[in-house]
Amino acid sequence: MTEIAVAVVDAETPGNIGTIARAMRNFGFSNLVLIDPPALDPDGEAYGFAGKAREDVLPNHEVITFDELVEEYHTIGFTAITNESGNKHVRYPFSTPAELPERLATTGGPIALVFGRERVGLTNDELARIDEICSIPAAADYPTLNLGQAATIALYELSGLVLPETQLPDRDADRATPEELAGFFEHAATFLEELNYPEEKRAKTMRLIRRVFGRADPTGRELKTLRGVMRRASRLAERRQP
Amino acid sequence: MTEIAVAVVDAETPGNIGTIARAMRNFGFSNLVLIDPPALDPDGEAYGFAGKAREDVLPNHEVITFDELVEEYHTIGFTAITNESGNKHVRYPFSTPAELPERLATTGGPIALVFGRERVGLTNDELARIDEICSIPAAADYPTLNLGQAATIALYELSGLVLPETQLPDRDADRATPEELAGFFEHAATFLEELNYPEEKRAKTMRLIRRVFGRADPTGRELKTLRGVMRRASRLAERRQP
Repeated sequence: MTEIAVAVVDAETPGNIGTIARAMRNFGFSNLVLIDPPALDPDGEAYGFAGKAREDVLPNHEVITFDELVEEYHTIGFTAITNESGNKHVRYPFSTPAELPERLATTGGPIALVFGRERVGLTNDELARIDEICSIPAAADYPTLNLGQAATIALYELSGLVLPETQLPDRDADRATPEELAGFFEHAATFLEELNYPEEKRAKTMRLIRRVFGRADPTGRELKTLRGVMRRASRLAERRQP
Repeated sequence: MTEIAVAVVDAETPGNIGTIARAMRNFGFSNLVLIDPPALDPDGEAYGFAGKAREDVLPNHEVITFDELVEEYHTIGFTAITNESGNKHVRYPFSTPAELPERLATTGGPIALVFGRERVGLTNDELARIDEICSIPAAADYPTLNLGQAATIALYELSGLVLPETQLPDRDADRATPEELAGFFEHAATFLEELNYPEEKRAKTMRLIRRVFGRADPTGRELKTLRGVMRRASRLAERRQP
């Protein structure tokens, strides 16, 4: 698996470093690299914002120079403001975070995602020394994301490259099979008969039911419970008929 | 365009509301709805973290009750912890944020993305009254994102539904055309000849050059500049030959 580090250049506020460390822990990254960081007080905002990362990602951070960064890593610099066209090369061409997983799957590591200062990001001099540019598509009149939020989005998009598994269960196993759906529709048709639902409307109502459940991707359990509801209604209807 | 609001239930810290407001502004959302919010001091963290959203999204927020929320909106509740299978219905089935844009494109509005408290999220009682569940895939051993970071990811994924345009220029217009690439490869072949590059190696080296530039998706400008470099080298080489 490609090693992907997160590098933060000259951050002003410890809080953002904590936010980034937390997102790293949430999305399966561990290597936090800081260039000219502010002091990280164990009782301050960096540790306060880091969640579980206060136990590993944050205290294990490494401090290096910008020279070491560009020498040791394939660097990807994040900036909200790209150049407008191919006539300039500092901030163009660029990838978007959604495109990165495919790109980085074949990039020789180690890789560093590089984020700049809160207010001004990475300078042109820094970007000129960085291997490639990435930019998060955002509102044309306010594309500048907060540092911690930009890093969170990048890590979210790249988590598939490093996370062996997520917290989410496999949904396919629970989804109703075509047989269960067919059984449900058959049951619904019988149900309409039992209710003495007007014969001329039955086919149309069955099409409607098929459309609703066709879109809802129900689980087997959902269909089973709804069939139980129909069964109970049938029994009561039977009893009450003269 | 479907109206998509962001609802935050019982947030404890004003800072997270500011962070969410900023992400809304970055990704093209404007309707912030708060249920039981903390006090939002104009000189406090909510406004401090909101960036440009301090001018519009944040001051324009609406305070409503949870009853009003579920009555007036198609609600999508976010939770890191889903049920494990279809046997329970409070937190299952669920979508992921990446799946939402396609789902919501056909959902009748208004829609509200609903986020819960910092520590405990939305309660089971609240989730039971919400229309559908969404969960962000994250590390199995630490899937709980910070509130502001979770909302940022959801808004990032949904921005395509509401943003008329982003800050990013159209890259297709700058990419080299097949003709420009063909011209470049022809020039490179001539260049090797001019350098008296060993004849038996030329075809192989040309294949290598084709592979490098085939993967790099160069712009027309990049190829033009590199052809200029080759031209200059050719001229110098010519002059120095006896």
